[in-house]
Amino acid sequence: MSNAYLQEFAQIKELIARSSNIAIISHKGPDSDTIGASLALKMGLESIGKNVESFAKDPIPTNLQFLPKADTIKNAINPSSFDIIFAIDCGAAYMMKFEKDYPEILDPSKTILINIDHHPSNENFGVINIVDTTASATVSIIYFLLEYLGIQITRDIATCLLNGLYGDTGSFRHSNTNSLTLKIASNLTAKGADYKSIVKNQFHSNRINQLKLWGRVLSRARLNDKNATVSAVTENDFDDLNASPEDLSGVIDYLNSVPDSKFAILLAEDRKGNIKGSFRTQDDMIDLTQLAGMFGGGGHKKAAGFTIPGRLIQEVVWKIKRG
Amino acid sequence: MSNAYLQEFAQIKELIARSSNIAIISHKGPDSDTIGASLALKMGLESIGKNVESFAKDPIPTNLQFLPKADTIKNAINPSSFDIIFAIDCGAAYMMKFEKDYPEILDPSKTILINIDHHPSNENFGVINIVDTTASATVSIIYFLLEYLGIQITRDIATCLLNGLYGDTGSFRHSNTNSLTLKIASNLTAKGADYKSIVKNQFHSNRINQLKLWGRVLSRARLNDKNATVSAVTENDFDDLNASPEDLSGVIDYLNSVPDSKFAILLAEDRKGNIKGSFRTQDDMIDLTQLAGMFGGGGHKKAAGFTIPGRLIQEVVWKIKRG
Repeated sequence: MSNAYLQEFAQIKELIARSSNIAIISHKGPDSDTIGASLALKMGLESIGKNVESFAKDPIPTNLQFLPKADTIKNAINPSSFDIIFAIDCGAAYMMKFEKDYPEILDPSKTILINIDHHPSNENFGVINIVDTTASATVSIIYFLLEYLGIQITRDIATCLLNGLYGDTGSFRHSNTNSLTLKIASNLTAKGADYKSIVKNQFHSNRINQLKLWGRVLSRARLNDKNATVSAVTENDFDDLNASPEDLSGVIDYLNSVPDSKFAILLAEDRKGNIKGSFRTQDDMIDLTQLAGMFGGGGHKKAAGFTIPGRLIQEVVWKIKRG
Repeated sequence: MSNAYLQEFAQIKELIARSSNIAIISHKGPDSDTIGASLALKMGLESIGKNVESFAKDPIPTNLQFLPKADTIKNAINPSSFDIIFAIDCGAAYMMKFEKDYPEILDPSKTILINIDHHPSNENFGVINIVDTTASATVSIIYFLLEYLGIQITRDIATCLLNGLYGDTGSFRHSNTNSLTLKIASNLTAKGADYKSIVKNQFHSNRINQLKLWGRVLSRARLNDKNATVSAVTENDFDDLNASPEDLSGVIDYLNSVPDSKFAILLAEDRKGNIKGSFRTQDDMIDLTQLAGMFGGGGHKKAAGFTIPGRLIQEVVWKIKRG
């Protein structure tokens, strides 16, 4: 284990020892890392006699509902009833979404907020902060924290942690996969993590209409004159197939898999009269934040996007008509 | 490391010590495991002063040509010039494909054939046999053999081994992924294996017309009255898109990802007047060998197929007209 957080781990251990009631907040639009880390920490702290509640303002996605105790996550919090509050995998304070109604969460005189995350955007908004941008996922930090606290990693805890690792590395495909990632994954699997269910829920749960939607996106793929792989989806497509923009999740990785293409663009209409543009690139020389910025968007160098009012009109190519 | 093969490892060590010229044969239609294992073993044995040649009767797929020394693999062999011959990842003797022209390869009085494999179908056709059906891939066995021989695992060797492991587990998605798989992968990554290139060559090299072909397959997906997810590709599709049946590789996993569907069927015409049927299932209760057997085919319980003369005719559903 890394020695990087030993001081913070010691402080957290001390705080936990003095606490009875502990809250754990996941980020809005929760994903496998924030939920996996939250549930693992909850179960771990419960095993040493603490009263722990997990919270997420937004609904838990279907493919995370198989996780042990996922049904115990609450969407309403009363911050004053907790001795300490963990913010888990929240890249910024507003990602908690509860701090709007309860600004005292961010007031160090009122709340002991422990901020554990791996996003570069994190601005250390907690009283204690562990922000390790080298960690593949926040679950990795939780794994080491549980180990430090001497908490036994049960099968259920292992499943939650591994699910986060698997999700945030895109099933060990993304560039944040390294030797330590795989070692932790190996250890969690040895502790009984339900690998099969994790894979199944992450990748084997496509509705037939989602496949058809992907089919339309891929059928329409073309290389434009800028050597970008472009495709598009209209509101009609969503209507025809009773599908939603969430059903597009992942398909852009395929558009981004054409070897000679510099980057990939997926344009999608939504029901509110907007166009959402998503960019991905494999090219180390390309910074997509600049491209997305031209449309008022942002993101990372290798994955960025924008949303603007407008509709797609099909000519010979897909273009954007600003609304 | 497992003690299961210690006796065979000792015999192999002894044989290698007495040999100067060593051949390694991969199976026909070579994949990442057989090629990765062959090149890793070749480089390892070369590092201790042996003259080693790797052989594969069929061409090396494009996405394996990035592997170190892939360009040194030969497709013509003279068995008599080698002291020992390794058959690597060959699930049956005929898979070597060289034994047709050189039956002496299978004659224990003429050839010291060392058979290293992980397929249940393997019938111990060598003089020495290590057939470990619990191994995720043959590269895992080679990894332990190199370790046993005291050979240093260089970056290049690590890349070849990891590529085989990654390929045979479907990027750690298939059910042959376990704690040991991930541990070996972690160790190989720590030794400098080129993880990024492995992922890129395995998953990020889809030609635009391959995407369009996948688009057609997915757009046509439907649930039939047997609750199977069915799709089909005609010779016209291949012609239109200048694509080949190899471009379909992987798409059936998506057809097999519909949660309520019992199994997936992909029907594809070829240019010789045949229809190739592929079956996949996630359902533990279904044995696809029976289904494939009805069409004279075979395979595994969870993945099977057949080839019969015929053409596809599109009615309301896709049916098979036997030729």
